[in-house]
This record gives sequence, structure tokens and C-alpha cells, in this order.
Amino acid sequence: MSGSQSGLVCPISSADGEVIQIAHGGGGRLMQDLIRNVIEPAFRNPLLEQRHDGAIFACPRGELAFTTDSYVVQPLFFPGGDIGSLAINGVVNDLAMCGAEPWQIAVSLILEEGLPLEKLRRVVRSMAEAAAAVGAEIVTGDTKVVEKGKGDGLFVTATGIGRMRTRGRPLASQVQPGDAIVLSGDLGRHGIAIMAARAGLAFESPLLSDCAPLWPNVRRLIEEGLDLHCLRDLTRGGLAAVLVEIAETSHLALEIEVGAVPVSPEVNNACELFGLDPLHVANEGRFAAFVPPQDAERAVAVLRQWSDARVIGRVGEEQSGAVLVKSPYGTRRRLRLPSGEQLPRIC
Amino acid sequence: MSGSQSGLVCPISSADGEVIQIAHGGGGRLMQDLIRNVIEPAFRNPLLEQRHDGAIFACPRGELAFTTDSYVVQPLFFPGGDIGSLAINGVVNDLAMCGAEPWQIAVSLILEEGLPLEKLRRVVRSMAEAAAAVGAEIVTGDTKVVEKGKGDGLFVTATGIGRMRTRGRPLASQVQPGDAIVLSGDLGRHGIAIMAARAGLAFESPLLSDCAPLWPNVRRLIEEGLDLHCLRDLTRGGLAAVLVEIAETSHLALEIEVGAVPVSPEVNNACELFGLDPLHVANEGRFAAFVPPQDAERAVAVLRQWSDARVIGRVGEEQSGAVLVKSPYGTRRRLRLPSGEQLPRIC
Repeated sequence: MSGSQSGLVCPISSADGEVIQIAHGGGGRLMQDLIRNVIEPAFRNPLLEQRHDGAIFACPRGELAFTTDSYVVQPLFFPGGDIGSLAINGVVNDLAMCGAEPWQIAVSLILEEGLPLEKLRRVVRSMAEAAAAVGAEIVTGDTKVVEKGKGDGLFVTATGIGRMRTRGRPLASQVQPGDAIVLSGDLGRHGIAIMAARAGLAFESPLLSDCAPLWPNVRRLIEEGLDLHCLRDLTRGGLAAVLVEIAETSHLALEIEVGAVPVSPEVNNACELFGLDPLHVANEGRFAAFVPPQDAERAVAVLRQWSDARVIGRVGEEQSGAVLVKSPYGTRRRLRLPSGEQLPRIC
Repeated sequence: MSGSQSGLVCPISSADGEVIQIAHGGGGRLMQDLIRNVIEPAFRNPLLEQRHDGAIFACPRGELAFTTDSYVVQPLFFPGGDIGSLAINGVVNDLAMCGAEPWQIAVSLILEEGLPLEKLRRVVRSMAEAAAAVGAEIVTGDTKVVEKGKGDGLFVTATGIGRMRTRGRPLASQVQPGDAIVLSGDLGRHGIAIMAARAGLAFESPLLSDCAPLWPNVRRLIEEGLDLHCLRDLTRGGLAAVLVEIAETSHLALEIEVGAVPVSPEVNNACELFGLDPLHVANEGRFAAFVPPQDAERAVAVLRQWSDARVIGRVGEEQSGAVLVKSPYGTRRRLRLPSGEQLPRIC
């Protein structure tokens, strides 16, 4: 990265090296250097090297999925991931939940003046690794800079195009009475890892975010020939938000057995400490699959390759649109969304 | 928008109505209300109503263009547009510059706590109108909220998929020696409108941003059968940044006649006042087209429907990768990029 070459640019540096300046967002030489020296080398591929306003590529006939998410997580680096891997896995997972294989990814960065370049380098490296892990490419992007105090280090928006690989479209409207609800693994690791990082809380064994790509898991379910009625990853609002939304959209009753929902002892303890319910805590590598009852055990067997998958409930016949939670003591309560969430800026 | 329903949520209101709260980003009831009552009604379309993690649609065989941009413009509302129309026209224009018809758009919002909901309503309305104006649809999106002081009202990221309509790909690498450089209209209106809005400067006749969709213009050029070697819109860094980048990428010499570049008297006066060169000022509704010399006059004639298009220069034979600016007095200077830009947060 070259230094300032103009009287209009005020160079800023931090003790540990170069930092983002307002001029890095200005469309001039510094921005070009930033893109060519820091961003492009991490993402290198022929489409990005077209160096145009967008990427152009041939697309065979078929169905596409298209999804976008902004990431504002704090801290930028947390046990088990960072905003870069989170953003790419996030878009990969949203595509996977559509039944789509991740294909082309666009990344847009909003940098705050003063962000150390070394942090940016680490984040773009994470992004490139996360994309490569599922065979996707980061083919186009944008960079903006805002003044110190008008952002928070780094915000990332990742947008993906995927190619549909399921026979149908695994939407909430496809959920059928009698469907089994399969949970892909234990709950709450991402939310608790972030909260612990913010609180400076140390665990005996370090608790890592579950941040991970879900396409390998979904691909295996598709290869097994399972009938995937609906897939949803359990991000903001956790399992609870997904169940409530699916019940409302499908107008069907869902029932889950809370005793069947796996939660690690570390997450359980932290939830007690913070006064949280693991059903509401965000995950970044867990999903729920709604499948016909005869497919449920095979789905669990496939997903056990990665984590502690279980059948946690079923879809009822009633048109109530409600979610009922059965406790181990046989009591039932209706699950409702809180107005907000326990923890802002989890993703 | 319903008020707070939980002890965890701290409602905030401003004198003129409801405002964004941290809980609006939490994945709970407030976020659902925000999306269903404010955002979805503006963008209404069947894909958005799938209410899934992404939009799923059929795609015929062909070439696609894919582009993303974040928008951090200040102020959010300016003469001739706002961050919403700017973001949608921005993605539309990047697609048009690829030779692609705008098709599917994804929008992601980063809201700062305290943003009046009325402002958000105006912005999403602008977005919907700008998309409808070119027959595109906003089919998927995301919303995040950051604490007061960690953002700046509203940042928008818009990402688009377009369907290629040109015979070739109008990339910088397609520029040929002898090509005419056609400028679609007068320069500098967007940058000066923003700068004037920030400085509280009043013009005798109000100077509006040139913010506009360029797809109608490009479509007409395609329909005329013109050979479009390269198309570039003149955003951050203005005409100068585009010419320098194309010269560097194509390794060819470009020569422009600065006397042929149209600049309105208002922009000229403001540039003198602020000490700016109109060649470097950002535009949001202007582009340069590189076409074979025999197509130049027809391109100008087509573009005159919208604005004061002109042939401003040509591509030379030399492999210098330099841009030469000829003054009306016959002098020549080499055009270089400044390190930054005169004006941050122009888009």
C-alpha cells in the first residue's frame, strides 16, 4: 500500500502498521492499490480479473437461488471464526437452505477509517478460504470507507447465487402434517461464543462458534435421495424464531420435545449464567430439516457425520400455526418470539 | 410498528415519530414487524413472499452479469435523489455497463439505532420505484441494526443479476485502437449536488444530481445495432478514473479534448468555488462508451434523447497505457489519478 501522494489526503497510521484512510474509499490511486494489493490477491479468479463493474459468466438453464446478508458482528474475530468466515458461511448456508449449491459470491465491504489493514487482510483471507471450502468463487465486490465513528471497524455484505440441486423447492409452504423435525446438531455455540468473547468469559475448554458451511451436509441429504420439504438454518432468533415462522407460514402446528434438543454442558451453564434460553440463541452452523417421517432416521444418520443430529419433534394436523414445546415433565407451553433478541450484533 | 413488549427492549422515540431500535435487528417480533410492515409492502412481489432465506427462480440458458455496491452517501436525501434511488440506479447502471438488462435485485440494510422510521419508509419507496422503472424486482434482502454511533443512519448494499443483451462482453480488454470515446452527457452534477447539500450552498436554479438509470440508454444503443466495445459509468473518481483504468487495462493510449467535455455553468462555477476539476467529480447517470469510429455519431444521436452526449476523444495506436488531455489551447497533459478523491461518501 503506497502512502499519501496528495495534499488532500491525511495519512493515519497506528502503532502496529498501516490503517484504512478516508482516501481508500475515494476512487483514486489509494483505493486502486487497496483493491489490487489487499483484496484481489486473496480472492484471485478469472472473473474478478475482468476488472469491470460486475462479473459476467455463462449460466446453463436451470433454477437459481439468490440471497444476501449484511454482517455487523462484534467482535470481528471470535473463537471459531471471524466476520469473514461468518459472512461467507452465512451466504453459503442461506443457499444450502434453498437446496442450492453455492456458486458465485459478491462481497461488499464498509470500512471504518482507522481499521488496521492487517485485520482486513485476515478477514479477506478467511473469506477466500470459506468460499474455496465449498467450491464457490468471490467474483465481484465493492469497497466503501466511512469516517471514524460512523462505522464500527468493518461491515460485510455477502450475496450469493446458487444452483438448485433439490427436486422441489424446500420452502416453508412445503411442510406437511406428519413431517419429522430433524435438528442437525447441538444449539447455541455461536451465540455463547460471541457473548463470552464480549464478556471476557473464559471456559475450561474453549467454546468455539459452530460457524460452518452447511452445503456439504445438505448435499449428502440430497445424494441420499431424502425428501427435503423445508430446510432452515438457525441464525438470529435461534431455533425458536425458525419454528415460529414456519408454523405461521404453513399455518400448521409444530410440536417439539425440549428434552430431545441437544445442548452442550458449556452452553447450558453459560445460558444459566446469562439467563438465556438455548432455543433462542443464534447458531451459524445448525439447521432444521422437515422431512417425511419415514426419512427421519436416515437424515439423522447422515447428519451425525458432522454433529449430534436428532429428531426433535413433528408437524401436527391442526391448522393452529402454533409451536408447542413439551417439557421432559410432560407440560406444554406455546413458544413465542421475544420482541427483540437477547444479544444484538451476533452476525 | 408495535412498541416494546419485553423488558430487554428499550424503546426510543423522536419528536417526529417512531425510530429504529436495537431490537429491530434481533430476529424477534419487532424485526418481523419491521420487515412485514415497512419493507415488504414497498417491494411486494411473489419471490419476496416466498419468505425464505433466499429467492428461488428459473433461469433460461444464457449469460448473466452479477454486481454489488454498498452505499454510504451523506446526506441520505439530496437534490435529485436519495440513498435508495442511488443504490438501485447504481446496481442497474453497473449491470447496464456489462451490457445486461437488470433482472433480480437483493438489498441489504444496515440501520443505525435512532433512524426515524419515516426516513426508512421514504428510502424503501425510492428503491421500489427505481427498480420498477427498469422492470427489475427486489426479490430478497436482509436488515441489520447497529447501536447509535456505530453507523450513520443507513447504509445500503444492492446486488443485482442481469441478463446479458450485448453480442460480446463490453470489457476494457475489448477497447480497440481507433475507437471513439462517447460521453453520454454533461459531467459533475451528482458530486456538486452532494457537496452543495453538505455546504448548505444554494444555486439560483437548483442543481440536481444526475442520478438516473442507464439501462434505457444502453438498451437503445443495443437496439440500434451499435458495436459497444466497452461501457463504463462515471461514478467515484469521475471520468478521469474510468479513462485511467481503461488505459491501464487495455495498455492503449487514450486522448480526450477537454473542450469537448460538456459541463453546465452551475457545475463549472461550483467547481471553481470548491477548487475541483469536473473530470474527477462523481456522476450517477453518465457513462462513457467506446465504439468503432463509424458508430460514434449514431451513438451520440441515440444518447441525445437523454442528455448532451458528445464524442470527446479517441483511442490511440500506442501501447502507452496513458491518458492525454488536450486543452482548447492545444497543450497536452497526462491525466493521473489523485490518491484519494475530493469528496468522500459521494455514493
